[in-house]
Amino acid sequence: MSLEFFFYPQSVAVFGSFRKGAIAYEILRNIVEGGFEGKVIPVNPKSGTVEVAGNIFQIREKLDESVDTAIIAVPARIVPALIDEIGPLIKGAVVISAGFSEVGNEELERELVEKAKKHGVRVIGPNCAGIFGVHGKFFGSFEVRVNPGGLALISQSGAFGGAALAMGNDEGIGFSAFVSYGNGADLNESDFLEYFADDENTKAIALYIEGVKDGRRFLKALRYATERKPVIVLKAGKSKSGAKAAASHTGSLAGSYEIYRAAFKQANAIEVEEMEELFDAAKAFEMYPNAGKRVAVITNSGGPGVLATDKLERLGLEIARLSDETVEELRSFLPPQCSLRNPIDLIADADYERYKRTIEVVCRDENVDSLLVICVPPIFIPSGEIARAVIDAKCDKPVIVNFMAGQLVRDGVKLLERHGIKNFSTPERTAKALKWLSLR
Amino acid sequence: MSLEFFFYPQSVAVFGSFRKGAIAYEILRNIVEGGFEGKVIPVNPKSGTVEVAGNIFQIREKLDESVDTAIIAVPARIVPALIDEIGPLIKGAVVISAGFSEVGNEELERELVEKAKKHGVRVIGPNCAGIFGVHGKFFGSFEVRVNPGGLALISQSGAFGGAALAMGNDEGIGFSAFVSYGNGADLNESDFLEYFADDENTKAIALYIEGVKDGRRFLKALRYATERKPVIVLKAGKSKSGAKAAASHTGSLAGSYEIYRAAFKQANAIEVEEMEELFDAAKAFEMYPNAGKRVAVITNSGGPGVLATDKLERLGLEIARLSDETVEELRSFLPPQCSLRNPIDLIADADYERYKRTIEVVCRDENVDSLLVICVPPIFIPSGEIARAVIDAKCDKPVIVNFMAGQLVRDGVKLLERHGIKNFSTPERTAKALKWLSLR
Repeated sequence: MSLEFFFYPQSVAVFGSFRKGAIAYEILRNIVEGGFEGKVIPVNPKSGTVEVAGNIFQIREKLDESVDTAIIAVPARIVPALIDEIGPLIKGAVVISAGFSEVGNEELERELVEKAKKHGVRVIGPNCAGIFGVHGKFFGSFEVRVNPGGLALISQSGAFGGAALAMGNDEGIGFSAFVSYGNGADLNESDFLEYFADDENTKAIALYIEGVKDGRRFLKALRYATERKPVIVLKAGKSKSGAKAAASHTGSLAGSYEIYRAAFKQANAIEVEEMEELFDAAKAFEMYPNAGKRVAVITNSGGPGVLATDKLERLGLEIARLSDETVEELRSFLPPQCSLRNPIDLIADADYERYKRTIEVVCRDENVDSLLVICVPPIFIPSGEIARAVIDAKCDKPVIVNFMAGQLVRDGVKLLERHGIKNFSTPERTAKALKWLSLR
Repeated sequence: MSLEFFFYPQSVAVFGSFRKGAIAYEILRNIVEGGFEGKVIPVNPKSGTVEVAGNIFQIREKLDESVDTAIIAVPARIVPALIDEIGPLIKGAVVISAGFSEVGNEELERELVEKAKKHGVRVIGPNCAGIFGVHGKFFGSFEVRVNPGGLALISQSGAFGGAALAMGNDEGIGFSAFVSYGNGADLNESDFLEYFADDENTKAIALYIEGVKDGRRFLKALRYATERKPVIVLKAGKSKSGAKAAASHTGSLAGSYEIYRAAFKQANAIEVEEMEELFDAAKAFEMYPNAGKRVAVITNSGGPGVLATDKLERLGLEIARLSDETVEELRSFLPPQCSLRNPIDLIADADYERYKRTIEVVCRDENVDSLLVICVPPIFIPSGEIARAVIDAKCDKPVIVNFMAGQLVRDGVKLLERHGIKNFSTPERTAKALKWLSLR
């Protein structure tokens, strides 16, 4: 099923209050400031005008032309009637409004879906935070805008989704899309999995769920998606108390975690246990579709190299055994104090040439599937120089990078990011990134 | 043994080259810019002057008066003679210079120690990154300066230590001291454990080790320290390849990890597995000496509350069962949509009053040992307002805070930090912080 009209709309209408700070206003602002190039129509019976980012919009009393998608933030009780009224003019409705099944108003939610079905309108929500179609410059949510990239984030929890977008910005993640589907009255996680599986801008899908309503459908959709691209899943409500809380939160039956876990495994999804792991896996898969198990560690500092090595082994990856030719070639240009065993220690004064050449030599070794490159800020060499070496090194295998030390490597990390290389902040997180890649 | 002359010196001499960028110059700069109030004497046979932060220092040809500590960054081969020469004038020497046992020059290292012993001089290093005594405003290292606080960081690896200082700054950690002890020719991890155990500015000790030379001594020192304050240990070289790499890196025999693990446990140290966990544990222990197992979770957003709950249960903590009185009191002022079960969901529009009162009511519950407070950025309420509620709430139990969403909560996080409340970036890391606290 195509959901293009949601994620790549040509025209949208926003329904709600347009005083500053109101939800509809904030969404309108986000759409306009995000650079949406299609038509945007604010609608409110009180009409008037609204100014956003220097543009003055006439608020229409009612929608009087066709648009791809309506974003609705009006009181819950009038949503079904609104959908019935505008149904002939829209393809999709994103219902932000809360006050449906999540607070016991099942009947109102049924009515909403019924009116939508009558007109062939697909619904996202209600009780959701909205959607982003980032490559279409469409930011149909009040959540913070994000940079374009390869990750589609599907979140049952709006607040989780919003926080993940903001934190994703800090982590250097690029997004293709975001959808918070709230109560999932019509479209749910399975529909989005199937859609993003075929979306060409999406390289990886991240899914936050508490529970699903139709397990069989979900498993099928999950399989469909994982056959096409990596799907990273964070399941909340795994513990006894967590499951109870999830039930009272989204009304979803979290069900036995064991069943979910088996399903994720069976469908070849990448299950992560923590929010941070979701980011790390997403970053890794935005860069590479997969990686083998035999890792070469290149570092300018012994300790962090050892930490990475410990974690890699613990995660079941292998510390690649370098070929004799590789060792000989490294010996030909590295100072005698360097360690030529894997982890390869280039020592503290390693510069551009030493990093670049080592990466290239090691990359050619048939015993090596991927490279984990660590840089602790050298005293006399700007981190940007080492970043440049990583960028310039010719290597056709996955290179996962850990420039560590916060502000001291900020320049290097920024330079890496401008070249599409995402940084991982500790040796252990870098090792985990390679672990996720090895699962595909 | 007192090591005051290292960490609270009245006067120091720095030996080495004072051209810009040289190690001795960088250390001198750090000492001066860090606001050291004692006497600082640069020494180099070539004499001349050196300008640092607007001050011009006369470089002395040789040390001709007594100082507490000498920081030495001259070529390795002349270090023993220098120590012999200045021995009568100093109490301690920090030898930054490399080129001793770590590259096979055991004899030179023995000579160094012998000369120091002859004069009753204690030695840190050689092959180390130096030391900080933060409350004495003494930054005797080229590593990035840090904020004063309660953590003493002892690191066998200089590069790890340097990176941890920089990352600690980003994490909002305050430090009492830092010591990189390199080859540990004289003083080693055991001496520093004992010293910081009795240092009144140190609330917690973090230790990075690859291996120790004298296991019995180490166990005794570790016990001595843990009886007085929490000791967080990150052991590198746990895996087969990691241990081999550690051996070639510091020359230390990493030994069987199982023995170390048993020793840490026996001594009641807090062993962490990742660098990031070291930070989280350090942050928690800078704030609180310990915490019970029964946790109350307070959140304005369901999903993250569920994630925290999952992780707490998984870590063996308990989701506190709130007393009937607590539930009734919460019911009296919270909106009906809020969840009064633990996790307590204050829902998205929770404001200052709702957070503050809930924290205070829950804190009084005898079934609750500690509070985990989550704030996802509310749309209409600045995060600073919620931060203010956490700061103002009267509660005599540990409160561990997770303001999530990067830049969106930066104001709130800064406000918290100004009041000594450290923020944890994800629900899971917050849960882990409570886990570490529960181990004391």
